[in-house]
Amino acid sequence: MKRLIEYGYKGKIYPINPKDGEIAGLKAYPTVLDVADPIDMALIVINAKHVLTAVDQCGQKGIKGIVVISAGFKETGPEGAALEKQLLQKVQSYGMRMVGPNCLGVVNTDPTVKLDACFAESLPVRGGIGFVSQSGALGGGILNILKDISLGFAQFISIGNQADVNADTALEYWENEDDVKQILLYMESIADPRGFRTLASKASKKKPVLALKSGRTAAGASAASSHTGSLAGADKAADALLKQSGVIREFSLGALFNSAKVFSHCPIPKGDRVAVITNSGGPGIMATDAICEYGMQMAPITDETKTYLRSYLPSAASVKNPIDMIASAPLEHYQKTLEAVIADPHVDMIVVIYLPFLGLKDIDVAKAIMEIKAQHPQKPIVGVFMTKNDFFEKLSEMEVNIPFFMFSEQAVDGLNRLNQQRLWLERPEGIVKEFSVDKDRVSALFDKVGSESRTQLTTAESIAVLSAYGIRICKDANASSEDEAVAIADKIGYPVVMKINSTKISHKTDVGGVRVGIESAEDLRTQYQDLMAKLKEKNLLEGLEGVIIQEMVPSSREMVCGVATDPQYGHMMMFGLGGVFVETFKDVTFRLAPLTDQDAHDMIRSVKAFKLLEGARGTIPAKLDQIEETLERLSQLVEDFPEVEELDINPLLISDKDGEAVAVDARIKIVPPKASFL
Amino acid sequence: MKRLIEYGYKGKIYPINPKDGEIAGLKAYPTVLDVADPIDMALIVINAKHVLTAVDQCGQKGIKGIVVISAGFKETGPEGAALEKQLLQKVQSYGMRMVGPNCLGVVNTDPTVKLDACFAESLPVRGGIGFVSQSGALGGGILNILKDISLGFAQFISIGNQADVNADTALEYWENEDDVKQILLYMESIADPRGFRTLASKASKKKPVLALKSGRTAAGASAASSHTGSLAGADKAADALLKQSGVIREFSLGALFNSAKVFSHCPIPKGDRVAVITNSGGPGIMATDAICEYGMQMAPITDETKTYLRSYLPSAASVKNPIDMIASAPLEHYQKTLEAVIADPHVDMIVVIYLPFLGLKDIDVAKAIMEIKAQHPQKPIVGVFMTKNDFFEKLSEMEVNIPFFMFSEQAVDGLNRLNQQRLWLERPEGIVKEFSVDKDRVSALFDKVGSESRTQLTTAESIAVLSAYGIRICKDANASSEDEAVAIADKIGYPVVMKINSTKISHKTDVGGVRVGIESAEDLRTQYQDLMAKLKEKNLLEGLEGVIIQEMVPSSREMVCGVATDPQYGHMMMFGLGGVFVETFKDVTFRLAPLTDQDAHDMIRSVKAFKLLEGARGTIPAKLDQIEETLERLSQLVEDFPEVEELDINPLLISDKDGEAVAVDARIKIVPPKASFL
Repeated sequence: MKRLIEYGYKGKIYPINPKDGEIAGLKAYPTVLDVADPIDMALIVINAKHVLTAVDQCGQKGIKGIVVISAGFKETGPEGAALEKQLLQKVQSYGMRMVGPNCLGVVNTDPTVKLDACFAESLPVRGGIGFVSQSGALGGGILNILKDISLGFAQFISIGNQADVNADTALEYWENEDDVKQILLYMESIADPRGFRTLASKASKKKPVLALKSGRTAAGASAASSHTGSLAGADKAADALLKQSGVIREFSLGALFNSAKVFSHCPIPKGDRVAVITNSGGPGIMATDAICEYGMQMAPITDETKTYLRSYLPSAASVKNPIDMIASAPLEHYQKTLEAVIADPHVDMIVVIYLPFLGLKDIDVAKAIMEIKAQHPQKPIVGVFMTKNDFFEKLSEMEVNIPFFMFSEQAVDGLNRLNQQRLWLERPEGIVKEFSVDKDRVSALFDKVGSESRTQLTTAESIAVLSAYGIRICKDANASSEDEAVAIADKIGYPVVMKINSTKISHKTDVGGVRVGIESAEDLRTQYQDLMAKLKEKNLLEGLEGVIIQEMVPSSREMVCGVATDPQYGHMMMFGLGGVFVETFKDVTFRLAPLTDQDAHDMIRSVKAFKLLEGARGTIPAKLDQIEETLERLSQLVEDFPEVEELDINPLLISDKDGEAVAVDARIKIVPPKASFL
Repeated sequence: MKRLIEYGYKGKIYPINPKDGEIAGLKAYPTVLDVADPIDMALIVINAKHVLTAVDQCGQKGIKGIVVISAGFKETGPEGAALEKQLLQKVQSYGMRMVGPNCLGVVNTDPTVKLDACFAESLPVRGGIGFVSQSGALGGGILNILKDISLGFAQFISIGNQADVNADTALEYWENEDDVKQILLYMESIADPRGFRTLASKASKKKPVLALKSGRTAAGASAASSHTGSLAGADKAADALLKQSGVIREFSLGALFNSAKVFSHCPIPKGDRVAVITNSGGPGIMATDAICEYGMQMAPITDETKTYLRSYLPSAASVKNPIDMIASAPLEHYQKTLEAVIADPHVDMIVVIYLPFLGLKDIDVAKAIMEIKAQHPQKPIVGVFMTKNDFFEKLSEMEVNIPFFMFSEQAVDGLNRLNQQRLWLERPEGIVKEFSVDKDRVSALFDKVGSESRTQLTTAESIAVLSAYGIRICKDANASSEDEAVAIADKIGYPVVMKINSTKISHKTDVGGVRVGIESAEDLRTQYQDLMAKLKEKNLLEGLEGVIIQEMVPSSREMVCGVATDPQYGHMMMFGLGGVFVETFKDVTFRLAPLTDQDAHDMIRSVKAFKLLEGARGTIPAKLDQIEETLERLSQLVEDFPEVEELDINPLLISDKDGEAVAVDARIKIVPPKASFL
């Protein structure tokens, strides 16, 4: 009540209390039903045991929005969880939406609303941020320091136990809410990953969405038998989800606020070329280091601009980027230089650095820059003012149109986020393609495996599944005679590998049963005869079902791809460097299924081994489209068959002949039938 | 003069000015020679053209320390550089030490000295930091904000053009200066890398040395023909130097100050087990994430402590680390919990988190923690107070004995640095071993190469150099007959490789001149005869000098090691993953020569491929000692022969038979004789 009144809520407040009388100077009512006027929202801050009754009254009154601050629900154990379930059922039956329970409340700083329905220590600061916090305490802590960190909220939701309203709801609502210019999320878990992806992908195309997802190292991935499984884990899944959704992931509150400050005052740039204007060498060099390390460019200032700068800057100044106007730079040099750099067509973003010198006042420089910015709002400008706190305090009392930082790196961190958002906006939407596949064959295979109470498919079965989904597998066939072997090899093309196919022998190589590099029909016949003779000699003909003639893929590049299943996030697709290095270098990347064509495109480009695919060291470039399609087809497989629990294609060889990616070995594990999806 | 007087210099000030009279209330003298008393230090702030005369007068007066603030020297071009050279000669001839020229001055906050001989905007703040800044502007900027960033200086030196005094001088002086508790360096270049290494290694064993080295991406490495060269570069060299010297490298001013704040108030911990005490879940989780990501441990609180905590904390609290006392925690819970955790033998470091709740005042909590810390100074404690700036302002007016931060990650960043310093202190000193080698043979080889006006050694010559330095090379010898070939192969041991050795044929494989995997004498004879027959058939016997019989090292692990030369830092030793992946994965590490045994030990453990050496995937573990020795021997080679410009051993195969590292191919490039070292 105190906060609602203090902050100056523009609507009408009806205190509800069984004792009625007066609360904070307002007439109180025993129940909402006693209020004559219609009510939009109810804020419930009573003992948990009375909440259901209160909700019933709200329902009867026709209130559509409720915020349940009261604790004593799911967070307290099974009883509380049961109560929360009842609460949610009630809410849904009345067609209401509910924030909470067990939350800090909500805030809307819109001047026509001015709602502070929270119990944070301080009143909110107005701004363009929509903030969702899964931790009430943290949300309150942030509300309390908004002024100190130079940020302002448009709206704030403490989702608490997120029984109904969660981050997804906020994303959906804020996507088209003009008052919210950027969305910040503090999450400890993601309730509905698929829903989140759909909503965040849309919202992030309209405004920046930033997330701090904590609990990264809390729980290790459960023991997994596959490569993909052992490299996966919930945080990899969360990371994939955020990437695919265009959400900028931050790893600390400091970084989150730093980025939010930049997004608060900067447009999205047209490119990644950064100009640095400074009156001191050191911070200019540090900014340059940071810009280059992020992979952005130092803007190649035009000769025209350089000539102009040279016309008034002292000879000791440097007109190359970073533009060092030296310590003597008066206010006028800041103004002329900034205007020239804004006008330079080779510049996309600008860092202005100021160190206190010779009586030039920090706040005067800041004001001059902001005046210029107001006239030229098109390019992002950030200020680095390595000066006293009272400068920043003065700023926090003013309307600013530029983010100011104390250190170069903070400014460049922010520009990097602007650039990241630019790249996301430029990235095509991406579609989930549908390929023509033999779904029935896979269905039949899985049924067979299930009927045998197995969960692990044999190699042959695994390969058959891939083949049914149009994935390029290593060609092979069983031959029961020499002539048949030659016929098969002729069809596959030389060189080939010959392996014995016997029900009795499991370690083929131990008995000399694998012959590689067979170059011709003649060679094959010789080797076949030799093999049979040796098997006879060793009395190993029993159980022999013939020989497998297999295509031999000449390759110096072994990749890996696969699928793991996270209990919360579902199917995770993996791609990366395979072979003996897979566990050592962990040069792999994950995305959640279903993959769009863009996701597949991004995946293969986000591992270091991409250089190998491009054709490093004189190799034939890999068929990138075909690798992407392989990943997309795998994605379709697990979408069609959710029972696929683990899948490894290792190695996925890149042919040195034509760059084609060929699945040579595969293993698939499915969940036991009793747990299968209906 | 203004600063000297304002800050209250404890000595006597003699203003020197040709006009004499009075300056700032003090009697001025025309020259130092006119002052009757002895003078310790002269601060020279006059036009560059008069500096030499002033120095002469100082010399005659017997002044031993001078600080030349005046600009107009090397930084202005060749004329200034010449003047600076004269200045230095004069300084040295008088047996003086000089700070500058072109600097901001020096500061000593020792209460018995109180010297502020700088022209920064603000007076210095007293503390335990010795700070060297290569940028005067940046140094001044930092002096100006010391109070705002909660740091204090014991001494400050703006080294300017560092004609005489540089970072090395400061390290040497401060190593044994008790007033300086930690050393901070801002460097854009390192004048004398060897001297720096010697002095920094010693100093860093006594107190933390932190460096921000900028200009990381300014200049790319010059075009290099070797692998090692192409992966090297000045920043890699600087990084290696700092690592070998025990200097903690920071990459931003924010991080530098963050660490300095922690070192200002924390002892070095006994281990890496961190306990987190919090009144709010979110920041506790974020601290946990950061602790685990740094590879530190969440302290396993003893059962005894847990039982005690449980005795007074509410049931909703968590007594497992992180210890969440929940929002209701009163001051008493903070006190009891902190005392219990300090007493817990499983805890090495402590993070105390506070979010404002229920009227508990931030400053009261901070004071309570500091009181406990004062009684138990043995363990590092850091505070995370996510509260308003005015809390931090209040702190800046107080004596504090704990570093306080706004965010969890800042606190954990600091603890990680404490832990890093602990590891450095625990690291054995390391010695540069001297191996018995055949130096004369290498001398003769290099002379021969030089006499032929070559800089590139042949493979055979390169291998011979390695062999002379006792590096395990792939055994081989030339055979001019079948019998000789067999005799050699018998000595080397099978399997072997046979390669033709011909002056006419450069591409051996194109003519079928390389035979691998020869398993027996019989096999060798057959292959030898076949090879000779084929060569005769193709008319290729002319120029044939025999065949090379080479040991065949069975290996699935290819490493690389080598040497590159940086124009400033000298010889850089490299080690890492070799073979086709060397450029793709860049899984290599650098250290500067000479290598100590500890450096070699660290090197092989700092690449991801170390897992392969340990025997990943069922391979025989590599002989780690022998690989270390290989690196140490290479280091000795380049110390003995500075003319070695580039050296690559690629691959350095790890034998699957016995784990030995074998140099199979090598290339060495030396500098042209005219540039050789005398």
